[in-house]
Amino acid sequence: MKQIIVVVGGVASGPAAVAEARRTDPDARIVLIEKGDDISYGACEMPMLLSGSLENPERLRRFTPAGFADHFNVEVLIRHEVVRIHTETRKLDVANASTSTLVKMRYDKLILATGASAIIPESLRSATPDVFSLRSLEDARTIQDALAKRTIHHAVVIGGGYVGLDVVWALKERGIRVSILVPKDSILKEGLDEPMQERLLAHLRHHQVAVRDDRASGLEVAPDGRLAAVLTEAGEKIGCDLALIATGTQPQTQLGLDVRIKMGASQGYLVDDGMQTSEKGIWACGDCVEREETVFGEIIHAPLSLNAFRSGRVAGRNAARKGTGRPARIPAVVKAAALALGSLEIGHTGWTESAASKLGKQVVSATIKHRSASSLSPHSDVHVHLVAESATGRLVGCQIAGGLGTSQRLNVVTALIRSGGTVDDLYNVDFVYAPRLAPAHDPLFVAARTLQKALNASRKH
Amino acid sequence: MKQIIVVVGGVASGPAAVAEARRTDPDARIVLIEKGDDISYGACEMPMLLSGSLENPERLRRFTPAGFADHFNVEVLIRHEVVRIHTETRKLDVANASTSTLVKMRYDKLILATGASAIIPESLRSATPDVFSLRSLEDARTIQDALAKRTIHHAVVIGGGYVGLDVVWALKERGIRVSILVPKDSILKEGLDEPMQERLLAHLRHHQVAVRDDRASGLEVAPDGRLAAVLTEAGEKIGCDLALIATGTQPQTQLGLDVRIKMGASQGYLVDDGMQTSEKGIWACGDCVEREETVFGEIIHAPLSLNAFRSGRVAGRNAARKGTGRPARIPAVVKAAALALGSLEIGHTGWTESAASKLGKQVVSATIKHRSASSLSPHSDVHVHLVAESATGRLVGCQIAGGLGTSQRLNVVTALIRSGGTVDDLYNVDFVYAPRLAPAHDPLFVAARTLQKALNASRKH
Repeated sequence: MKQIIVVVGGVASGPAAVAEARRTDPDARIVLIEKGDDISYGACEMPMLLSGSLENPERLRRFTPAGFADHFNVEVLIRHEVVRIHTETRKLDVANASTSTLVKMRYDKLILATGASAIIPESLRSATPDVFSLRSLEDARTIQDALAKRTIHHAVVIGGGYVGLDVVWALKERGIRVSILVPKDSILKEGLDEPMQERLLAHLRHHQVAVRDDRASGLEVAPDGRLAAVLTEAGEKIGCDLALIATGTQPQTQLGLDVRIKMGASQGYLVDDGMQTSEKGIWACGDCVEREETVFGEIIHAPLSLNAFRSGRVAGRNAARKGTGRPARIPAVVKAAALALGSLEIGHTGWTESAASKLGKQVVSATIKHRSASSLSPHSDVHVHLVAESATGRLVGCQIAGGLGTSQRLNVVTALIRSGGTVDDLYNVDFVYAPRLAPAHDPLFVAARTLQKALNASRKH
Repeated sequence: MKQIIVVVGGVASGPAAVAEARRTDPDARIVLIEKGDDISYGACEMPMLLSGSLENPERLRRFTPAGFADHFNVEVLIRHEVVRIHTETRKLDVANASTSTLVKMRYDKLILATGASAIIPESLRSATPDVFSLRSLEDARTIQDALAKRTIHHAVVIGGGYVGLDVVWALKERGIRVSILVPKDSILKEGLDEPMQERLLAHLRHHQVAVRDDRASGLEVAPDGRLAAVLTEAGEKIGCDLALIATGTQPQTQLGLDVRIKMGASQGYLVDDGMQTSEKGIWACGDCVEREETVFGEIIHAPLSLNAFRSGRVAGRNAARKGTGRPARIPAVVKAAALALGSLEIGHTGWTESAASKLGKQVVSATIKHRSASSLSPHSDVHVHLVAESATGRLVGCQIAGGLGTSQRLNVVTALIRSGGTVDDLYNVDFVYAPRLAPAHDPLFVAARTLQKALNASRKH
């Protein structure tokens, strides 16, 4: 008997789960169900459509639905939405958006890869065609069309996370005047402590982005139905002809909520290290789950591309295996991300000092600036903010900002965090040196040395 | 009673030892003795003087002898050479090159930081003024003068190590036609396996460097005393007006040999993890020592800049401390190095597959090519050759070649090698991703995945 494996959700982790399930069980009937039109595209590359550096949205596609179905010998249903899981009978209610019909579908194994969706605050919901969010390729196409149709003079981006910053930069590159509405201490706040937030804000200002330390409280729509202004909590009115809401995302877990799959504090599915949910026969992966992180063993939501891919592979393998062979296990995650804004790369790994302190952890940090290469070669400044546990010197997190290539250094710290490495371990890395590619003392080495001193000083008190 | 600490040898590890000794014992009398004119300069930046990208040799200096003496409150003797150690009386015979006199100097603690010197094969020794080696700032100045005095049409570089390749590129950038004489399998052979050696050779050829798979057997000098040609083992005669001999270096340990300090297979001082030699009261550091490496626990010669600095600090600390406080310990070294040749960065960490096999280790490797960034962003090819132990999957070494920024990735592998990390650990690193700064799957991630498959396949046989 062929087993039926149903994967709900396209883009990153769903297709990874399908591919791995197919490799694990060549005979299974595998069905990928996606609510929208697209599966398997480069979501992080969508801002390119907004900046104008890329015209054709098709270039973001890795597979068409038909191509994917063909390549992996699976069934792909687009414009289909799973609206209800019946766990006792292992059946799904699937709504077909094209025909507006509802069908039942049987599954033996179910993988939820429903991702996360943009949070749109109630006060910013609007019927105007000039307010957007950016989560799917469909969203990107809609914004791209709006930008093509009429000249935008001034855009307001609400929110200072990765998506907001990417869009700020994309619109700026297109020549649009952009304001970003973000309380000062909340810009990339999941990743950056105050000194690095300041650096990022200075970079934006230097490039003529209007940074407003304020929150959006509402929208003003003109009599013709077009957007007139974004209103702020401080009582300001920012006249604009386009707004993008990027105030965060949340796991899309309504399906699981209905059948009482266990969730974490962020409303993501709780999974074990095999990506299995609390419900037998149901796995979950990608941006809709919460799982253990490496440093403190906390359960967190880590919506990251590589995490989506890796967790999808593990879910696909374990869902498809039939009791033979080793189950796949995923290690705890380190939250690491970076972005490029023109000549600046900025990113982070692990915990911020501020978030670790809020958890009640005693940490010490050092902030340094050093060259990216020899003083006699072309070089830029690299800023490092390194955080370690006071008592043990164990690495807790690192933030870095600098010229092109800088963010590669984060991977070194991530590798050490994974193995429980200390500041001494970072100091002891045999960094490569040649005048044109690194300074004699790498910025990470300088940061480690500075933090060693700070740790010693903190122990003397 | 003030203790007397004598450090023999300037440049990298000697000054680091002096600085740390001063921090450890503010009262000691500390003397740095250097045979040449210079202490504390950027040795790896010397090729810039040859390429013409830097005119003034003074810019390589970090400290003048007087400035260093002043800054650290120590004595600096340049043009002085320690010619004999009397261990029983703790005295040194010191020759003053300026006055041709010999004086005795007492020491309580002695630190040998005599470095390594270029090996000049007997057959290539010559009285012609057109044959050079490059080891000291003095050497660099001599070559710079020679290049300024007359037009060089064709230079031959003998040897394919780091120094040879740096000089090839520097002379090429100056517009000189350059041949490199290096047996095919010996180019950067301490660092590269055959696939990466091929890549390096192709890069050189592509940039009009004449690569000759041959060895130098002698020199032909014209009746006017100038260099006429380099003769090869294959019987060829390469007409040229300048030759640089870069056939390797060896630890300068004559001083220790005279008093029977224990040496390793490369004739470097054997030291413990506190950088102490076999002789009580004598430490050694930098390029004149051999010490344990991380992967297999072999004793190796690792003449690297950062290693010189770090080992100098440890030697300085331990020599200066008086029984109080913790002695400094240095962990085993990972040999990692890289160089930039125009648009190519190439480097390595750990062991080559070939060297590991010669040691009798069972290893498996994978060679991959992947993008440095998203396919929709500017990117270059990154080539990775990853080596792991067959039985355990433990990382043994990595070689990498690609565009600017590529070699930073070596530090990730080095960090993992230090902690005994496996290929799975490399696969599990949470690599940062953003289209412009990295591809969704980092080249190291792709290499790890490929090597996981190769390891699995090798275990099935």
